[in-house]
Amino acid sequence: MKEITFQPIGIIHSPFKRPEGTPIQFVGGKNIRGTIEIFPQYVEGLKDLEGFSHIFLIYYLNRVSKRSLVVKPYMDDKLRGVFATRSPSRPNHIGLSIVRLIKISKNQLEIQDLDILDATPLLDIKPYVPEVDTRENCKIGWMKDKVGKFKSTLADKRFHAP
Amino acid sequence: MKEITFQPIGIIHSPFKRPEGTPIQFVGGKNIRGTIEIFPQYVEGLKDLEGFSHIFLIYYLNRVSKRSLVVKPYMDDKLRGVFATRSPSRPNHIGLSIVRLIKISKNQLEIQDLDILDATPLLDIKPYVPEVDTRENCKIGWMKDKVGKFKSTLADKRFHAP
Repeated sequence: MKEITFQPIGIIHSPFKRPEGTPIQFVGGKNIRGTIEIFPQYVEGLKDLEGFSHIFLIYYLNRVSKRSLVVKPYMDDKLRGVFATRSPSRPNHIGLSIVRLIKISKNQLEIQDLDILDATPLLDIKPYVPEVDTRENCKIGWMKDKVGKFKSTLADKRFHAP
Repeated sequence: MKEITFQPIGIIHSPFKRPEGTPIQFVGGKNIRGTIEIFPQYVEGLKDLEGFSHIFLIYYLNRVSKRSLVVKPYMDDKLRGVFATRSPSRPNHIGLSIVRLIKISKNQLEIQDLDILDATPLLDIKPYVPEVDTRENCKIGWMKDKVGKFKSTLADKRFHAP
């Protein structure tokens, strides 16, 4: 099957310049602020977005060098299938985060609760809508006894280029 | 900035062969079943996934022909910025759904609660983890008085190739 090609719509700016020490999920990045710079040709698409308090960001993990099918996640010491983890070293280097949208000024979005590296290319923004984006009575497999660690675990260099 | 290239990791099969009549979100596709066929070279990455009851699917909206910065969403009669909607005719044709994972048999995933067209190329699977993927006290802008319509609104051809 043929390759699929996307163009970045903007760049995410954050205080995290290197993988080491970056939160691994928003619960560790809570209150951390950053900005998104949307490229001028896409700004018209931001209309009506400011009414939403939270947005999905879909982005390109451009500093990840590896592709592994089994990984040792930050929170665990066993090898897990990569699709059962949020590890960045997946076959397609696609990242997904929900962030708080504080303010939009022209092509600049002020955002909060970041777990994203600085200078990350953004592929899409979608509004977060609890009525369609939340599920109840979930099972979370191997993460069951680990989710508490999201808050205090920081990334290291294991998945990234030197 | 240069193009970003991904390879499909599998194909989503669903009962929805055409855009017309396809649910626009899972609340309309509730209980609808489908399957995912993961390509053999990625099957090892499915290890440990079966412990999760819900998964994010990130996929390529390969039947969408348009790219619009303002769109008239199915639930509304006003033009809205595309990033404030879940319309498929976005600059990058990336889809995002949360589905229920019923069962995994080798490279076949049985899934439920589908709002996805048949034969859609899959780019990534991530486990859905309520502790990191839900937000409370959300504002949902123009959708505020429309979310009830997700359940009963079906797609038409407006965003797709003939």
